[in-house]
Amino acid sequence: MKILLVFAHPESRSLNGALRDVAIEELTAQGHEVRVSDLYADGWKSEVGHADFPLLPPDARLVPVAASKTAFEAGALTEDVKAEIEKLLWADVLILQFPLWWFSMPAILKGWVDRVFAYGFAYGVGEHSDKRWGDRYGEGSLAGKRAMLIVTAGGWEEHYSARGVNGPIDDLLFPINHGILYYPGYDVLPPFVAYRADRLDEAGFTEVAEGLRERMRTIGTVSPIPYRQQNGGDYLIPSMQLRPGLGDPAAPSFALHLNETREALRQAGE
Amino acid sequence: MKILLVFAHPESRSLNGALRDVAIEELTAQGHEVRVSDLYADGWKSEVGHADFPLLPPDARLVPVAASKTAFEAGALTEDVKAEIEKLLWADVLILQFPLWWFSMPAILKGWVDRVFAYGFAYGVGEHSDKRWGDRYGEGSLAGKRAMLIVTAGGWEEHYSARGVNGPIDDLLFPINHGILYYPGYDVLPPFVAYRADRLDEAGFTEVAEGLRERMRTIGTVSPIPYRQQNGGDYLIPSMQLRPGLGDPAAPSFALHLNETREALRQAGE
Repeated sequence: MKILLVFAHPESRSLNGALRDVAIEELTAQGHEVRVSDLYADGWKSEVGHADFPLLPPDARLVPVAASKTAFEAGALTEDVKAEIEKLLWADVLILQFPLWWFSMPAILKGWVDRVFAYGFAYGVGEHSDKRWGDRYGEGSLAGKRAMLIVTAGGWEEHYSARGVNGPIDDLLFPINHGILYYPGYDVLPPFVAYRADRLDEAGFTEVAEGLRERMRTIGTVSPIPYRQQNGGDYLIPSMQLRPGLGDPAAPSFALHLNETREALRQAGE
Repeated sequence: MKILLVFAHPESRSLNGALRDVAIEELTAQGHEVRVSDLYADGWKSEVGHADFPLLPPDARLVPVAASKTAFEAGALTEDVKAEIEKLLWADVLILQFPLWWFSMPAILKGWVDRVFAYGFAYGVGEHSDKRWGDRYGEGSLAGKRAMLIVTAGGWEEHYSARGVNGPIDDLLFPINHGILYYPGYDVLPPFVAYRADRLDEAGFTEVAEGLRERMRTIGTVSPIPYRQQNGGDYLIPSMQLRPGLGDPAAPSFALHLNETREALRQAGE
């Protein structure tokens, strides 16, 4: 398969850099073709702004959604953004790798999403009617492809557990997994998370690296997180609320959006 | 009171710009003193990198946590970061205002957090023992101050409700409200969210603006979200898991971290 790894750490000589190398090595050994977008090395610009839309007159008011739509349709996004879109269309699998800073991605990676996920490409796709609310959440330009996160976190795994003070890691990553990756159509694989990243000794690193290698070996086969398709009948249109009777009312809120049958199968397979 | 509003939209002639002006006008009319950090206008740099740590030799490996600690202790952060820290210490209330892009803040605001929330200032504060796990989650450098979000979202309010496809807005904002604002000690006020931001007509704007004015009038008195204090006895140390018996087991996961009594009082007061 063709794999794009987007790397968002400022230091190559870091745990993230080492894990990136482990991932690439294993993927290559498995016969996959890997390309890397190293955002810091590439000097990626993070801020959506007027300069992103060369067709917009200098004094015109910037409406980001409208400007993005116009630029995408005219093929007039900036070259750096167009190159990333080309890579996303090329890749069968997208990996986003980053340190968890303040419970989300570093600014440079958020800026990659903000700028590359253009209107008409990653959102604003498809028709709105009483049967469909656009091609999103399981449908869209990137449907049929897989995506996953590789994340390092400074805290302990227990602090990110169901009752941990930070909040459950799956919920903390929901805005990314469901809101950024599933939205334009990706099948989202469970994330790989390395905890206590600042205090990993050699034995700890060996164990984490082996876990990551195993995940890279199964990247084409592991079951995705069974998010519900928006237009598959589970949601009312246009309120986009989960249909009455669906979802365990006692389930944590984000878990409502998992298909129960497929989630039970996935948990059983772990 | 002294109020700092951090503004993160690239266009002043926008709904966000108009709402910012409404907020400032009302706060000023109430006798508050307001300062604004306009991140786009200031050309804020978003990416944490080597250049943020002038004491770090050019060829030295960058370990962001360690570099942040050293620089903060030595008073050697960059001038733009030091100016923001000074404003945070000055202000009684912090407001973060932004459009919700991909279910989180724009990159430029995430970069403000990543760079300004230094080790020793916003994290890495206080002692670790069997009684305390640092001064965080309700304690810390910014304890006693208030903070709130002003957010615009393109989608419908129903899409962000408890069973809405996007996920509940309070959960989507939990990584920011709890993870970024409550973490260094702020009392976090309920967010002000304006929905369908792209399609607001004049009547809609008038209604939203009046809602925002009302929130600005009560900014000093409204009850904060009753997150549990980490070191107040509700969490086990060091696993930082909620003590058995606390929290409704059927509650949505992030809601576990609310104090039930204070939350019931707050809901009753709405």
